[in-house]
Amino acid sequence: MADVPPNKLSAVAAAREIAAGRLTCEALARACLDRIEAREADVAAFSALDADSVIAKARHLDRQSSRGRLHGLPIGIKDVLDTADLPTQMGSSIYRGNQSRADSAIVAMSRAAGGLIFGKTVTCEFAGMAPRGTRNPHDLARTPGGSSSGSAAAVADFMLPLAFGTQTGGSILRPASFCGIIGYKPTYGTFSRQGLKFAAESLDTIGLFARDVEDIALFADALLGHSSLPATKLAKPRIGLCRTYLWDTKAESETRMAVEEAARRAEAAGALVSVFDLPPGFEDLSIAREVINDVERSRSLAWEWMEHRADISPQLTRSVAAGLKTPEETYIRHLRRAEELRAHFGHATASFDGLIAPAVNGEAPRGLDYAGDPALQALWTLLHVPTLALPAARGPNGMPVAIQVVGRRDEDRKMLALALWLRDEAGIQLPAVMKLSSNQRTAPQASMERGGV
Amino acid sequence: MADVPPNKLSAVAAAREIAAGRLTCEALARACLDRIEAREADVAAFSALDADSVIAKARHLDRQSSRGRLHGLPIGIKDVLDTADLPTQMGSSIYRGNQSRADSAIVAMSRAAGGLIFGKTVTCEFAGMAPRGTRNPHDLARTPGGSSSGSAAAVADFMLPLAFGTQTGGSILRPASFCGIIGYKPTYGTFSRQGLKFAAESLDTIGLFARDVEDIALFADALLGHSSLPATKLAKPRIGLCRTYLWDTKAESETRMAVEEAARRAEAAGALVSVFDLPPGFEDLSIAREVINDVERSRSLAWEWMEHRADISPQLTRSVAAGLKTPEETYIRHLRRAEELRAHFGHATASFDGLIAPAVNGEAPRGLDYAGDPALQALWTLLHVPTLALPAARGPNGMPVAIQVVGRRDEDRKMLALALWLRDEAGIQLPAVMKLSSNQRTAPQASMERGGV
Repeated sequence: MADVPPNKLSAVAAAREIAAGRLTCEALARACLDRIEAREADVAAFSALDADSVIAKARHLDRQSSRGRLHGLPIGIKDVLDTADLPTQMGSSIYRGNQSRADSAIVAMSRAAGGLIFGKTVTCEFAGMAPRGTRNPHDLARTPGGSSSGSAAAVADFMLPLAFGTQTGGSILRPASFCGIIGYKPTYGTFSRQGLKFAAESLDTIGLFARDVEDIALFADALLGHSSLPATKLAKPRIGLCRTYLWDTKAESETRMAVEEAARRAEAAGALVSVFDLPPGFEDLSIAREVINDVERSRSLAWEWMEHRADISPQLTRSVAAGLKTPEETYIRHLRRAEELRAHFGHATASFDGLIAPAVNGEAPRGLDYAGDPALQALWTLLHVPTLALPAARGPNGMPVAIQVVGRRDEDRKMLALALWLRDEAGIQLPAVMKLSSNQRTAPQASMERGGV
Repeated sequence: MADVPPNKLSAVAAAREIAAGRLTCEALARACLDRIEAREADVAAFSALDADSVIAKARHLDRQSSRGRLHGLPIGIKDVLDTADLPTQMGSSIYRGNQSRADSAIVAMSRAAGGLIFGKTVTCEFAGMAPRGTRNPHDLARTPGGSSSGSAAAVADFMLPLAFGTQTGGSILRPASFCGIIGYKPTYGTFSRQGLKFAAESLDTIGLFARDVEDIALFADALLGHSSLPATKLAKPRIGLCRTYLWDTKAESETRMAVEEAARRAEAAGALVSVFDLPPGFEDLSIAREVINDVERSRSLAWEWMEHRADISPQLTRSVAAGLKTPEETYIRHLRRAEELRAHFGHATASFDGLIAPAVNGEAPRGLDYAGDPALQALWTLLHVPTLALPAARGPNGMPVAIQVVGRRDEDRKMLALALWLRDEAGIQLPAVMKLSSNQRTAPQASMERGGV
């Protein structure tokens, strides 16, 4: 690995090098800090970072004899999650300098596994729709997506191998796709939300970013105390091609081509691929997600609305105002409709190992004022199922475009195994991203890299 | 009302007096402060209280022209809920002096409705099983129950008309019963948990204490923006008598007699009462609740466990250790089993307006080291249904004993209407409690007050 700068190693590779004594936690941390110093003025991924403290923590880890599975791995924390040693400012002036007593649960769990909590990453205001200046590392004139903007950009730009995000609509999957990395939203409820500022309580899901599917598995396994993935290799996966009811109105040509091509490749590689249309009625997911989002945001932000209304962005003001106007009965009706659709989805997908679906409208839009459309991610968030963004193609401007791998509820490990199968057997994953994040594999998918897929 | 000290008024009566200009917010606040000064050394209900700030807030409210539905009503806040102007210490030395930037959502909503946030009330350690010294106002040698110890004791002792609690096992219904007041645990998810320290995320439910059912309705309606209760009066309620599978092992004679007598009275008053046995399999609720509780507590307390383990009580240490040992698959299996039982319960109770069930084992135990057994409350917490403690009898030592009124999920208002019907038509509610909290009604239920019901 001597020719790969430590900050460009995958998490799995870095952990292996550290365990073998060929890399110190400090050297890895310094490589990440160097990258950040070189690029942060352009990318603007961090809201809080203390380099001296990072080095001190890395040295402390180098002196420890007991070693967790994340030993020395730098981890970025979306700035809606509390950290005991760094401020949590939530992308809002209302929380400038806000310091919690405790770590959020997932931060403490990461530290317990040996992870090096590196810094806080920029979030859109309260994990919502108002961006806070982060740029897409692939094209600084474009949004990295949101609301987990800083986490996605930092991982994509080789500043960090791992980071936490949260998704309420599409705040993990969309920035992962726009930045060409892996974004994983687990089954709702997988990671404790203690210490998370809620956006919308019945939707908010903590998830992970990395540059490789194996890194996601390592990260999740370490946090959940699982044995390492994959427990079982998929042989002949049964895949549903789910274009969704938004295909005609939302999916741009690069997304359509990426999804169709992924299905073709999977079939060619031996998968049983069949079209899976969401049953009639599932289009209710979009409006239900929006109503629930507005109502619950208006409640989560009760204090900010009462005391600091002038400091809330126009986007979020619209959402809160819509939520406050919604009758309780309407909100409950949408909540219960979502429960029905979750149960229905479980029955309807019983014969599949997972689905392939569009992840985003298309490549990252130009400009920094708009973090992109959450529609194609949001329906799955409301279904509470695990999903993963797998970078699969490039759009007309050379920007990455992911497909979305969707699992059944609680079948996160099968979904991760399917993502690995799609990459290794069907050859789906952007080689440009692969090349930089890991140098062990040869990927035969050159044709998917060409403009317009 | 001239002969009733303001602190002994029900919330509804106090609100009416304030609206009519016959009572100022300051006079009400001073009456509560006087009561607290006289009794707090014995009862120990508060963990934080600033009398000067209370008076200042009351005067400010008296000067306001716009008036919410809780205008000037003193409200106690269980000390696991953040308040911007008072510390949140969670019954744990780990959080000594801990100060949040923001109010929790329900505190902000209370203030927005004109409520006077009065002080923080004592909680068992992290809303768990380790009491923190609060005494039962009816007998200082007995526990007030827990974990919402201070909220229940303060309301029962006429220090405050209203208070918030939280329930993860039985932390609202049990102290309400032990203290002879109304405790209301709404349908899971009713009140936003923003700013609540989680005990167990899929169980934690924020609820309310008051001395009267109407006060609960006023409080809930104000927070949810509902019109005032009751929208419809129940005529001939269909009531299930649900002794539960714990009747033989948990319900002591005073509880059995209170429940049976309540059913007899309801029938005599015109209700359609029939026995409703929880279907076979529902006994899984108890073990599922315990597993979920332990696992989720171990996650909520990840930081405390890692950084301050020596400061965690033996009770909580056992729960966290059990949670950490539980395989993820076991936890998920119990979570999904609970979902099945919730759906099953909905179908099985479709023909009822509500149930009458035992609320507690019996009267409050002697001593302050043990806050009582949550078993008879906990199964309903896991079912996510609304429940209410209605003081109905006295035990062999003259301590109050409640029955539990149980509603179907989302049918909170019907459950409150049923509680009103049980009180007004069937004459079920302790007159001793009635007499002190409200002087407008005449209650014909003297026989239920005698020792041993």
